[in-house]
Amino acid sequence: MKFKKSNKTNFILTFLLLSFLGNAQNDYKLWLQYSPISNVETVSKYSKNIQGIVKFGESETLQAAVTELQTGLQGMLNNSVGLSDKKENNIIIGTNSSLSNDVQSLIKTDIEKVQKDGYIIKTITSKNGKNILITGKTDVAVLYGAFNFLRLIQTNASVENLNIVDSPKTDIRILNHWDNLDGTVERGYAGSSLWNWQKLPLFIEQRYIDYARTNASIGINGTVLTNVNANALILTPLYLEKVKALANTFRPYGIKVYLTARFSAPIEIGGLKTADPTNEQVINWWKEKAKEIYSQIPDFGGFLVKANSEGQPGPQNYGKNHVDGANMLADAVAPFGGVIMWRAFVYSEHDIDDRAKQAYTEFVPYDGKFRKNVIVQVKNGPIDFQPREPFHPMFGAMPKTPLMMEFQITQEYLGFSSHLVFLPKMYQEVLQSDTYSQGKGSTVSKIIDGSLEKHTISGIAGVSNIGSDLNWTGHPFAQANWFGFGKLAWNPNLDAETIADEWLRCTFSNDDNFVKSIKKMMIDSRETVVNYMTPLGLHHIMATNHHYGPGPWVKNLSRPEWNPVYYHKADANGIGFDRSKKGTKATTQYFPEVEKEFDNLETCPEKYLLWFHHVSWDYRLKNGKTLWDGLAIQYQQGVNEVKTMQDTWSKNKKHVDKERFKEVQQLLEIQNQEAKWWRDACLLYFQQFSKKPLPQGVEKPTKTLDYFESLQFPFAPGI
Amino acid sequence: MKFKKSNKTNFILTFLLLSFLGNAQNDYKLWLQYSPISNVETVSKYSKNIQGIVKFGESETLQAAVTELQTGLQGMLNNSVGLSDKKENNIIIGTNSSLSNDVQSLIKTDIEKVQKDGYIIKTITSKNGKNILITGKTDVAVLYGAFNFLRLIQTNASVENLNIVDSPKTDIRILNHWDNLDGTVERGYAGSSLWNWQKLPLFIEQRYIDYARTNASIGINGTVLTNVNANALILTPLYLEKVKALANTFRPYGIKVYLTARFSAPIEIGGLKTADPTNEQVINWWKEKAKEIYSQIPDFGGFLVKANSEGQPGPQNYGKNHVDGANMLADAVAPFGGVIMWRAFVYSEHDIDDRAKQAYTEFVPYDGKFRKNVIVQVKNGPIDFQPREPFHPMFGAMPKTPLMMEFQITQEYLGFSSHLVFLPKMYQEVLQSDTYSQGKGSTVSKIIDGSLEKHTISGIAGVSNIGSDLNWTGHPFAQANWFGFGKLAWNPNLDAETIADEWLRCTFSNDDNFVKSIKKMMIDSRETVVNYMTPLGLHHIMATNHHYGPGPWVKNLSRPEWNPVYYHKADANGIGFDRSKKGTKATTQYFPEVEKEFDNLETCPEKYLLWFHHVSWDYRLKNGKTLWDGLAIQYQQGVNEVKTMQDTWSKNKKHVDKERFKEVQQLLEIQNQEAKWWRDACLLYFQQFSKKPLPQGVEKPTKTLDYFESLQFPFAPGI
Repeated sequence: MKFKKSNKTNFILTFLLLSFLGNAQNDYKLWLQYSPISNVETVSKYSKNIQGIVKFGESETLQAAVTELQTGLQGMLNNSVGLSDKKENNIIIGTNSSLSNDVQSLIKTDIEKVQKDGYIIKTITSKNGKNILITGKTDVAVLYGAFNFLRLIQTNASVENLNIVDSPKTDIRILNHWDNLDGTVERGYAGSSLWNWQKLPLFIEQRYIDYARTNASIGINGTVLTNVNANALILTPLYLEKVKALANTFRPYGIKVYLTARFSAPIEIGGLKTADPTNEQVINWWKEKAKEIYSQIPDFGGFLVKANSEGQPGPQNYGKNHVDGANMLADAVAPFGGVIMWRAFVYSEHDIDDRAKQAYTEFVPYDGKFRKNVIVQVKNGPIDFQPREPFHPMFGAMPKTPLMMEFQITQEYLGFSSHLVFLPKMYQEVLQSDTYSQGKGSTVSKIIDGSLEKHTISGIAGVSNIGSDLNWTGHPFAQANWFGFGKLAWNPNLDAETIADEWLRCTFSNDDNFVKSIKKMMIDSRETVVNYMTPLGLHHIMATNHHYGPGPWVKNLSRPEWNPVYYHKADANGIGFDRSKKGTKATTQYFPEVEKEFDNLETCPEKYLLWFHHVSWDYRLKNGKTLWDGLAIQYQQGVNEVKTMQDTWSKNKKHVDKERFKEVQQLLEIQNQEAKWWRDACLLYFQQFSKKPLPQGVEKPTKTLDYFESLQFPFAPGI
Repeated sequence: MKFKKSNKTNFILTFLLLSFLGNAQNDYKLWLQYSPISNVETVSKYSKNIQGIVKFGESETLQAAVTELQTGLQGMLNNSVGLSDKKENNIIIGTNSSLSNDVQSLIKTDIEKVQKDGYIIKTITSKNGKNILITGKTDVAVLYGAFNFLRLIQTNASVENLNIVDSPKTDIRILNHWDNLDGTVERGYAGSSLWNWQKLPLFIEQRYIDYARTNASIGINGTVLTNVNANALILTPLYLEKVKALANTFRPYGIKVYLTARFSAPIEIGGLKTADPTNEQVINWWKEKAKEIYSQIPDFGGFLVKANSEGQPGPQNYGKNHVDGANMLADAVAPFGGVIMWRAFVYSEHDIDDRAKQAYTEFVPYDGKFRKNVIVQVKNGPIDFQPREPFHPMFGAMPKTPLMMEFQITQEYLGFSSHLVFLPKMYQEVLQSDTYSQGKGSTVSKIIDGSLEKHTISGIAGVSNIGSDLNWTGHPFAQANWFGFGKLAWNPNLDAETIADEWLRCTFSNDDNFVKSIKKMMIDSRETVVNYMTPLGLHHIMATNHHYGPGPWVKNLSRPEWNPVYYHKADANGIGFDRSKKGTKATTQYFPEVEKEFDNLETCPEKYLLWFHHVSWDYRLKNGKTLWDGLAIQYQQGVNEVKTMQDTWSKNKKHVDKERFKEVQQLLEIQNQEAKWWRDACLLYFQQFSKKPLPQGVEKPTKTLDYFESLQFPFAPGI
């Protein structure tokens, strides 16, 4: 009998394939991988300090903290840590008030620094020896402390002589799920809705628990389950029973449930003839509805409302205004401690003024007129979640009203879940923008966290990118946007680099070379996407409805401000939207220092150039190139940068498990092809007006403009 | 410093919670768990025989077999088995023709027994020593052998002195995905479609590979990617490129891709004015379309067609018949080896005859008129995937035409993915039914596998229950229906108990007590569902559209045969559909022996009683009870049996991981509540006609009939 010789190449190939099978778990575990630490010394150093857990107090939340510690330590240190009766080398957990007096006395000054659900992680030494104390004023603070303690180990940080006090800067750190009751997700690119309404309330998926754990690990404390384009049925008993089951599941993790309120619900499910917010029956209906909800969900968070916006019903249907609507709902939930998050995303087809100005124009006069439990939710920029926008002029302009930030985590205008873009870099740009509302240093972050204007309520919302995909977010790197959103909601002054660093270590590897190289890729990625989509302040030139790919040519939609040509205004003379004082005067909505900077062509940052100015094709950019050449080169640069991302990723293959490596590799190839698509389609289109050749270094398009205009994407997701 | 004493109960609780976290992998891995075998002796016995792999030949399929063996052995034996150059204790894999002459000579008589893609697993002894040979005539046969060899270990069977020859009895073993291009799944209860059309062709999800592996492991060799209610866009270049990417991914696992053909596609995407199957342009369009598809996917399987059925277009729109339509398409794909699967699921609102008779009436006259590459796909029963139907009278009635079985794996009428019901028990009932078409022993299985009527093509289709849920099928036990379908497609004579046994061992545990007790629960489950939904031959009394829950009262739908009252015909005299010779004469569509049995009230099996007969409320059942009492008691029995299932599951807690235990426990509670709902709603409704009290032992309803009739389920999935 003759066997073929064993073949080494074959064997290696086989081994690679082998390790490629059945590893969905890594994708699923997000930044809570708790992977084994391979360095034996590191493990033993940690294990020396962590030999048991001592728990003070009893609650589901504390129990969750213990379980999480055990899960994490088991995974990373292969260390089964039980509840301990030893005197030292323990993790001691419990709220401050439940601690014994002698322990309390050791953290007297620390506890005074703690705000809200902030936590303390501190090495304490007494006659018993050394222990690590995780505490705070509330149960959920202790849970946050436990997650952050685990993150020290996840990032291979030292746990000797710990002395950490960390408090959230905002009150409401919340995800907005634009999930419909039929299981679809508006602007969702990661599968369908997580909420299995059909099987609720009796079937509690493990995924709900993992959702809550993951959010708690970054300090998120609220979730709006339903789409802002709301369906009133969610407020019927059939659904409230299901909402209650979710609320019960999330509660141990400190996450409150909120719902969207369809303004016309009193008509649709209440049998009334009107939804007029001044009508007694309507007022009463909402009061009774609030009572009904709170009887089932005592810690229900409140309502998020999109009213009189893009066809949604609202108080204006009855000749009333946003204040009337918001306050009526606020009164209904006030007795139970609920809040109303009222969205400022409004613009009207009957208003011929610049869309970018309308929200400010409408809302600023209402400053000071809202109830105390109303918080106005404002998108980061004045248009709609573009790759780049200047900050919204409402920030700073309503000092008597708490304003909440609305970021979009899902990539509606940023390549869906196929493009790698690290959004915290963009969030940071907005949060650190200076409004000058109370002089220099009046950053958006200080308005949002309530510190500048001394509000008693504050918050940050993120439109979720989460769905039923095995990896939750469609793109493994989109997980970083969820993570980064949570971190910035907790502390709006965090740096994007710090966030990327931490996320990479928790999610992939602590190898310093890997972290350094991929962190750079992430940080650069936001500018890359701007470069190949909308450089120099261009905006809203995406294809219609699905917003997937370029569509600068679109001009036939019924509402003018829905057409890309409305935004770029390219013509023979040049390109850009004149929002200066010579144009729509949108610049005047900013405080004088900012207005001056934006209004003047010379001082306007080039990243906002075409946002605020109509500029001739021959205009000289700061780099000496003409606008046309500079625009073309920036598109090309975006394409080049994607190629660099691909190279960077390939070089780091050894640090990543096969499955996620391949996923990202394939997605980067999509991004590569689509970056070229953006470049070619936009340059061919704008070239019709500039009538100039492509400058050197810019690749010739391989397809015609007609071809690009002919592309159709039926069943694009998220609509 | 004082710590609280460690608390033992607490610790245990914590430990349970701990082991409950983050175990999505078990659910995901289906019956390819490859869990470590804990018994050291067993492991060493296996390992002794399996020390290396010797591979003859090169192909992606053989490579997949090697990888699968390595994955499985690594998991179960913790044994990294590489390609070997040792002489004994190897697994030798390769097709028969690639084996060396001396090995070939050892299996000369075995290989003669092999049919189609059948495999041999045989312990061979030569001067080199003992080895285990896995072979067959084709690469995919070797892959099947590898999976079946692994299954021996999964079920703790001996691998000493193996001598297995096993061949599939049918040619086409295929899943029908009713997946729409927008990602929804018609009659899908396990999330959304697996096919991520948006990211194809560049993004190949690991899940596609795992889908292919899992199907190959049970011998499935085809998949129809799209809904029978078809969209012509799937045949456009945009989508064909995506289909090609899936075909490339599935090919190494022996799975061919098929599509549904919308009959009006020549109009919708071809720009023609007609889709008349006799029109030259139409004929040519389909020929060109076939050529285009095969140029991209050389092994494309062919088309599945639903024509002139429930509003779908078809040849009758042009005055032509099913033969004209099917043969025209068959001619288009014939040059490339493609087949047309033409569905016989037709009934017309213009035909006043019994719906159960219409498919037979329409198709039987066409026997012998279809092309050789047409196979007519017939549902198991004459109505529509009910919990119980007699076999379809077309089986045996078209001896010159190959008929393919269409089973439904997704539980459209069987409690969605919330109810535990083991369908192979039902499939077996149908397959073993004797049609008497060629005398006694002319079972449906022999017609389906082509052996009775000597067909050159045969097949079994299953309407898939697979979706994006982490556990693929919504209910962990619904995985068994996918598994069982595959096993029966391979061998329609397999016993449901054997299937359940194997599935349980691969999926959960080899503990004999566990297997015995849960196997009984599975086997009994089908009758249980019939009992609480549609006992004694009742059928189609589900709620309208979504088919979720009872709706025997529905009578206002536009087409009479869509109303439940059409099917049960309850009145003051009795209940049931008289299909005997005194009624619609549906019994006459069966061969005389069967006709006689069904037609006579005395001999008609009671399980089909109300299917074939209208019977008075006082009719005496074989157990001596009146029909009314018997009916009520059977509903109650269904409820009682669900309680027994719950008890059985609880008793087996220790054998199942926490996550799946809890999932099934919760789902059984849904089933428990819904079984009561069925009982109460149906009995209250029928009681209006019987005017009789509930017999002893039947629980009183706690709600009124009005309440049950008022229930609404907006956004029920799968419509």
